[in-house]
Amino acid sequence: MIKPYDILKAIKERKPLIHHITNWVTIYDCANITRAFGALPVMAHAREEAAEMAGIASALVLNIGTLTPELIDSMIVAGKKANQKKIPIILDAVGAGATKLRTKSTSKLMSRLRIDVVKGNAGEIASIAGSEAEVRGVESMGVKGDITEIAKELALKKKTVVVVTGKVDVITDGKRIFKVLNGDARMGSVVGTGCMSASIIASFCSVEKDHAKAAAAALCCFGIAGELAAKKSEGPGTFKEKFYDEASKLDEKGIETLKKIQ
Amino acid sequence: MIKPYDILKAIKERKPLIHHITNWVTIYDCANITRAFGALPVMAHAREEAAEMAGIASALVLNIGTLTPELIDSMIVAGKKANQKKIPIILDAVGAGATKLRTKSTSKLMSRLRIDVVKGNAGEIASIAGSEAEVRGVESMGVKGDITEIAKELALKKKTVVVVTGKVDVITDGKRIFKVLNGDARMGSVVGTGCMSASIIASFCSVEKDHAKAAAAALCCFGIAGELAAKKSEGPGTFKEKFYDEASKLDEKGIETLKKIQ
Amino acid sequence: MIKPYDILKAIKERKPLIHHITNWVTIYDCANITRAFGALPVMAHAREEAAEMAGIASALVLNIGTLTPELIDSMIVAGKKANQKKIPIILDAVGAGATKLRTKSTSKLMSRLRIDVVKGNAGEIASIAGSEAEVRGVESMGVKGDITEIAKELALKKKTVVVVTGKVDVITDGKRIFKVLNGDARMGSVVGTGCMSASIIASFCSVEKDHAKAAAAALCCFGIAGELAAKKSEGPGTFKEKFYDEASKLDEKGIETLKKIQ
Repeated sequence: MIKPYDILKAIKERKPLIHHITNWVTIYDCANITRAFGALPVMAHAREEAAEMAGIASALVLNIGTLTPELIDSMIVAGKKANQKKIPIILDAVGAGATKLRTKSTSKLMSRLRIDVVKGNAGEIASIAGSEAEVRGVESMGVKGDITEIAKELALKKKTVVVVTGKVDVITDGKRIFKVLNGDARMGSVVGTGCMSASIIASFCSVEKDHAKAAAAALCCFGIAGELAAKKSEGPGTFKEKFYDEASKLDEKGIETLKKIQ
Repeated sequence: MIKPYDILKAIKERKPLIHHITNWVTIYDCANITRAFGALPVMAHAREEAAEMAGIASALVLNIGTLTPELIDSMIVAGKKANQKKIPIILDAVGAGATKLRTKSTSKLMSRLRIDVVKGNAGEIASIAGSEAEVRGVESMGVKGDITEIAKELALKKKTVVVVTGKVDVITDGKRIFKVLNGDARMGSVVGTGCMSASIIASFCSVEKDHAKAAAAALCCFGIAGELAAKKSEGPGTFKEKFYDEASKLDEKGIETLKKIQ
Repeated sequence: MIKPYDILKAIKERKPLIHHITNWVTIYDCANITRAFGALPVMAHAREEAAEMAGIASALVLNIGTLTPELIDSMIVAGKKANQKKIPIILDAVGAGATKLRTKSTSKLMSRLRIDVVKGNAGEIASIAGSEAEVRGVESMGVKGDITEIAKELALKKKTVVVVTGKVDVITDGKRIFKVLNGDARMGSVVGTGCMSASIIASFCSVEKDHAKAAAAALCCFGIAGELAAKKSEGPGTFKEKFYDEASKLDEKGIETLKKIQ
């Protein structure tokens, strides 16, 4: 059984440093949600310092949301150091499948680095797996086939944990499958929740070695914060602020009462 | 007569992809307001994917707020593809007139691409038209001459729709002139509303071919969201959040009751 | 005696342009808080316009939060113009001590430019001074020695004003020492307050030539806004919005009642 609060408590106690090489759209939100959950965010994308910063971090987030070839190079430099020091890497494959650059860069990162968790929506994960899918910009418009099966095969083939976010989040290491039913439709009404969830998965993976469990626990907590915030908000603007409030206040009782992990 | 809600409804139904090559200050807000109005935002500035992303989009926003020569190159590459595929381009000439780089880059974009709508404050538009104006940073400090006349001549000369934002927004294709009186002073108290309005103009132009009408309808809806939010806020911080709430809740009755387009 | 409101009033009257070359995480917040205090923010990092923009500004903020070597070059170009025109420069040494690139770049900026105010947390300032300190990402984890003495010596050696932010902010020009006790723990619960305070110090220095006094007054006002916002908020999300509201409403009575400068 997964006890999300135990992992969350460890984050709050150890304050792990979560290094991000990420996009310019949601970079603030990724930093701020990391802080709200009790970890320390840092963003450092220059090739000249990316490896050094990764080397002192407890997890590394690679997000290709506004990628350039130079940024991918920095990601590889940072990722190699992370691999060397056994620091978990979370890859958020934003828009994989939408353009050749995104699809190729994702493939490059996955072949050059040992990725511990790869995360995307159904369209992005299916694209990475080589299945048929439509990705419009950064939105999944549809996938051919069963996404859980696609994720499972990808996890086995790449020896990684695969996370498919959606109404129900699917997390699999190829053997086990966890499904997280927490969350609220309001989370999709604001930009950034997808990227932010990768920061939280990274935070959980930084203190829990079973990365599939860590990812499921992270998405459960993240989703619960969304449910609580949705109840107190009147639209996407107030939702966003309440989300930070609720994320920072999550406690054992609230999580255990609301968690829906299968 | 302009029926803004009909266009807004088409956006919510068709979910057009709005591609942005924009600045790093308000990039999140541009994405988030696009989503709040029902369209899908995407931000992709790498030269290697800018054209491909523009090619699958329904409108392209070019915003020079934190321009570099490399970014202008990406804009031209993306813009050419957009022109080829008849996807409308909205140019937000942030800070034109403040530095040589901004003035020259605006001129370069307007000569190399067919720009469907060019938007700026009075100082920026006057600078583009070659009239005397003072632009301090990204603020208009004053213009010599009648800005409506300047806009009209610029529209005729460049065969484009010109949008001058201000207390009263002026929209002209050189023949017709629309004035939008919606909005609230609070909108000027936060950074980002100018850039966000270009994203909304782009969203409206993506589903309505009469771009002057589309721009007027967009600014009307945008201004109404501002008016409603101002009533519920106590300062720039709470205003911003309420603005997203109100933008996402705009309905036909509210728009028809409050719209002020001349 | 320092009268923060007199300086704040001058900002609101003169609307100084505050040019930033800063990081991509908090760039929006820096712009927005500058506006909330009544000054005009501008962000322009391209080498091709950085000097021209600095030349028309009333203060220049250099923030190395997501530095690259190219960005440091732009900072030097802009800084030289600022020095030439006697425009005050505020350096926010984000993460100095955490990586070689940050430590070296800070040192480069301080040797090539006349920096009027250098700001950091205890770990960053101690690193700059060559004292022993631990900086994890952008957080100060501990300093060996008395940070007030370290700051004082650094100020004398570099002929600059040194600002150490923390529970108590220390401001010194090497001769005088001001301590600001305003602020609230909630300010540390959100990303961005550190960077934002540099924008406000810059705004105050743009209209008050005694930069030590200006910095103390700025941090006093900034801290008071934080105290007022904390009382009205329920977590980091709502705090952030209320902070903007309160910052924009600061008045003489409120400041004089709450100010704690020693």
